Amino acid sequence: MSEIFHKIAIVGVGLIGGSLALALRQQGVASTLVGIENNATSAQWALDNGLVDEVVDQVPSDANLVALCVPSDLVSDWVVRLAKHQAAVFDVGSVKGPIVSAVACQIDLPENFVPCHPISGSEKSGPEAARADLFTDSMVVLTPTENTSQQALESVLKCWHCLGAQTSQLSPQDHDSALALTSHLPHLLAFAYMQQVESKHLGLTGGGYRDFTRIAGANPELWWRIFQLNKEEVLTALDTFSVNLQALAQNIRDADSESGIAAISAAANKRKGPEAE
Amino acid sequence: MSEIFHKIAIVGVGLIGGSLALALRQQGVASTLVGIENNATSAQWALDNGLVDEVVDQVPSDANLVALCVPSDLVSDWVVRLAKHQAAVFDVGSVKGPIVSAVACQIDLPENFVPCHPISGSEKSGPEAARADLFTDSMVVLTPTENTSQQALESVLKCWHCLGAQTSQLSPQDHDSALALTSHLPHLLAFAYMQQVESKHLGLTGGGYRDFTRIAGANPELWWRIFQLNKEEVLTALDTFSVNLQALAQNIRDADSESGIAAISAAANKRKGPEAE
Repeated sequence: MSEIFHKIAIVGVGLIGGSLALALRQQGVASTLVGIENNATSAQWALDNGLVDEVVDQVPSDANLVALCVPSDLVSDWVVRLAKHQAAVFDVGSVKGPIVSAVACQIDLPENFVPCHPISGSEKSGPEAARADLFTDSMVVLTPTENTSQQALESVLKCWHCLGAQTSQLSPQDHDSALALTSHLPHLLAFAYMQQVESKHLGLTGGGYRDFTRIAGANPELWWRIFQLNKEEVLTALDTFSVNLQALAQNIRDADSESGIAAISAAANKRKGPEAE
Repeated sequence: MSEIFHKIAIVGVGLIGGSLALALRQQGVASTLVGIENNATSAQWALDNGLVDEVVDQVPSDANLVALCVPSDLVSDWVVRLAKHQAAVFDVGSVKGPIVSAVACQIDLPENFVPCHPISGSEKSGPEAARADLFTDSMVVLTPTENTSQQALESVLKCWHCLGAQTSQLSPQDHDSALALTSHLPHLLAFAYMQQVESKHLGLTGGGYRDFTRIAGANPELWWRIFQLNKEEVLTALDTFSVNLQALAQNIRDADSESGIAAISAAANKRKGPEAE
């Protein structure tokens, strides 16, 4: 594949930024990759391991794509700072509405800003955990604003497609509502579940426990921020969950096999359905 | 490895019985494997695919190990029927107390009965899903009764160790209490969670969702039986979970970062701990 972008700047070279760098490199999407990374250890690691060609302080003026892979609460300042830059700018935050609002509070939403959320990650963090295939076959949701230019949108779409990702477009609100259910609530449940696990239990676990709890090993500060940013949607999803859980518990208490098996069967069929994976 | 058992009988050649057959065969643990299987399709499949050497109606008198891989509510009748058999008899049920009680209601607990629970399984079922490595590196909990003979216990331990499993011994009650937390509660939560997932969400999922919900694809009737058999312990574990979940939800609602991050961090550290996997 010929190189599509002359220079791509990656702001924040952690798990996501580092994986993006590896994937862009592997697919030959850019001639030059520059990193911007405050954490000196991560920056050195990214340089030493060839994730980026150089680490700089500011986004170079000749960059033609900028990936903001910083924590969600730092995204808006970068978007504002880069509002007049020639490059399309995308972020990778897990919650879109608050990021778009945080930008809109400061300036008119820039034409070059394309909010993105690659639904792929890991319970690990840091550039050491970066993987070139993190986005392969994953879904990336784009939530373009009313001001996003067609040119910027196409540029970012092209980047994700080069990495083997699928893309879909939603409003920030629809994204946040759906992800509260498909991602944020499972994390909340896994974190809550682990509270009652004691060391005596750890030898008495199997593959079910291992898979169910994997996401509980995720970065606590990152997830606390996500829960705060998407608080209303997460708590709404949790309310629905609690109602369904209590109904199923009541079926068990009452030995109501008909309702209980019907509920479990519906869950199992949905999970096994052809669309599920 | 030389053949340790002359003839092993496997009652119920589904996922677990079939996997046991494949593993015993692969490790050369028995000269002959006979299957007892009411489901004609499963029986034929097991024969055609060489899982067992023959399918018979009753446990042969010259068998020297019997694996009861039938649903939990059918185990006690088999144990009673085989109480005078020369062979050690073990089951693989997920809940131990009710099985032991169901036997004790009928006869003195037999010397040859060694209740077992291999903590390994799959959301799949049937002999077609059988895997020779299902028990490799897995944990098998044995809950010998006060009447279990040392000879029967050692025979069953030897069988599991030949298959690469680890073993530990607990009382039936301690087993059921621990497994309510490490296995049954996660299944209950995953089944409840799936109730609110709609088809529009399925394209907006990633690896977290996939792993968290895998166990929701498990066999509904099997799991309904487990929830009923271990009802008290499951509901007790659920009560504790609900308290922890509501506390974490309240932290989110109150934006109480200190408590929220502390709870999530404790969960993450426990999940990542060296003993966790």
